[in-house]
Amino acid sequence: MANPGEFELIRRFFARNGARAAAAGVELGIGDDAALLHIPPHADLVVAVDTLVEGRHFPVGSDARSIGHRALAVNLSDMAAMGAQPRWALLALTLPTADEKWLAGFAGGLYALADQHAVVLVGGDTTAGPLTISVQILGLVPRGEALRRDGAKAGDLLAVTGTLGDAAAGLKVLQRQDRAGINPHELELVKRFEYPDSRVQFALAARGLATAAMDLSDGLAGDLPKLAQASGLCAFVDIGQLPVSAALRASASVDLAREFALCGGDDYELLLTVPREQYQQLANAAARLGVPLAAIGDMRPGAGVNWSKDGAEFAVAATGYDHFR
Amino acid sequence: MANPGEFELIRRFFARNGARAAAAGVELGIGDDAALLHIPPHADLVVAVDTLVEGRHFPVGSDARSIGHRALAVNLSDMAAMGAQPRWALLALTLPTADEKWLAGFAGGLYALADQHAVVLVGGDTTAGPLTISVQILGLVPRGEALRRDGAKAGDLLAVTGTLGDAAAGLKVLQRQDRAGINPHELELVKRFEYPDSRVQFALAARGLATAAMDLSDGLAGDLPKLAQASGLCAFVDIGQLPVSAALRASASVDLAREFALCGGDDYELLLTVPREQYQQLANAAARLGVPLAAIGDMRPGAGVNWSKDGAEFAVAATGYDHFR
Repeated sequence: MANPGEFELIRRFFARNGARAAAAGVELGIGDDAALLHIPPHADLVVAVDTLVEGRHFPVGSDARSIGHRALAVNLSDMAAMGAQPRWALLALTLPTADEKWLAGFAGGLYALADQHAVVLVGGDTTAGPLTISVQILGLVPRGEALRRDGAKAGDLLAVTGTLGDAAAGLKVLQRQDRAGINPHELELVKRFEYPDSRVQFALAARGLATAAMDLSDGLAGDLPKLAQASGLCAFVDIGQLPVSAALRASASVDLAREFALCGGDDYELLLTVPREQYQQLANAAARLGVPLAAIGDMRPGAGVNWSKDGAEFAVAATGYDHFR
Repeated sequence: MANPGEFELIRRFFARNGARAAAAGVELGIGDDAALLHIPPHADLVVAVDTLVEGRHFPVGSDARSIGHRALAVNLSDMAAMGAQPRWALLALTLPTADEKWLAGFAGGLYALADQHAVVLVGGDTTAGPLTISVQILGLVPRGEALRRDGAKAGDLLAVTGTLGDAAAGLKVLQRQDRAGINPHELELVKRFEYPDSRVQFALAARGLATAAMDLSDGLAGDLPKLAQASGLCAFVDIGQLPVSAALRASASVDLAREFALCGGDDYELLLTVPREQYQQLANAAARLGVPLAAIGDMRPGAGVNWSKDGAEFAVAATGYDHFR
């Protein structure tokens, strides 16, 4: 642990600086006490942090590349939820030993996703201890254009991107059996858990159309009440409209698939509200970007969430993964 | 662990929002997917992250108030090292259980220091796992005025604030014996470890005078080579000039005190270079703020560090706590 070589090894994986950084508003990146960033005028800074703990947010022994991808993806998702363009990230990495193969995989997964979104790693701190990864993400949004949770209006349609429940089902698959025995449908679900998309491009297109947004990290049943509360409205949801993937339908009973779609976390899809008259425009933007979009209900005066199925009220038992995690 | 009440408990301690936040450029603080911050024009954003891991950066069972203080202090120190005004922070807190008394102490220590520096907590993430605290700090500096490590010029004097080695000696005291048996000198050392100052105000005064700066987190022998390397110079240090506190002198032999002053980490004092003709002005600023300042050497062409004592070269064995930590 107290081997100076390990420090050097870690530095090697995370000290990619230079031309790319200079192009992205980075006056000073990794290597000083802090990073120095230029913020363009008329932009607001958007900042968030999310932590992944081994054994809690991913199984012990997960593929390092997936851990690196997810550590950034969950933060990109926070940027998408605000309609922000992610720009820079800092990495607080606590790991038990500096294993070269693990670091190569982790850095590979993180940088592949960062490059895809032109996000530059500008700083961090590496410490020894139980595997814990905190990524701090910084993004920009034109002043006044951020998508917030509190902007929904009565009458707005409620929409979600992608399909729901896949990641939670994929995690269950991973926990239940060896990778070798996984069928193609299950593998698709596992990939949704290991390599979640972030809806960043779609979120940028949704600015000016959506009235409110948040990302689904704790499951629809856990997250939707937060949006409803922030906006001071009641969300009406037709459970029959929840988008469920073919892979999930093939891998679970109808009831179990619905349970995953309602209560499963880790999808990192976007939940949005949009005025009825702008829904088609939002759907067109989604189609252009190849992002599935489904209207699942609407916002009405009141509080909380009203779930219905085939026109009748439906009791949603679980409240999502909303607790101390 | 999976008790929803714990989440609520944590939220209660960290959801201080409202008037104060509104006054500090916070468009949107805790409670959405990310925080929204206004960055004034002509300012650069300064960002850093530092992690504390239980059993590695502080002893297991440390006072929660001290942990909260240190988690922010080490980050404030990074802002001071850049000459930046700290403004906002995010907290990634991983803790094994949500104990009310512990949380009250931790939040108390963190907020007391935050209030002292008018730093507003704008977001965070709380997860269950081994006790690990990452604070992300955001500050502002007028464009072009940041204190960097690479700005030292040949002929500059080398100076440090405060006294060196106290925190490391204090940690040794804590590890060696029960608090009850600690004498007043030792208690002073312990307090330097548990409640480090951050030289933020002095650092703001040093802008425009100092040519380079960094904070001493890993010990002078570990940190000074980094400044010398970044500036492309050799640092000449007269070990006889190292500022050592009366408490440390009373608690250790001359040799041991020197060892602490050279190699002990966690002091969070500032190391600065300053043109000779501006040293008095810097010293006056320090005196005004009640911050001790000592010239310990100068910068010359070359590389590395040249340590001397009574005019003769002095071999510094340890290279500081520079390894994977």
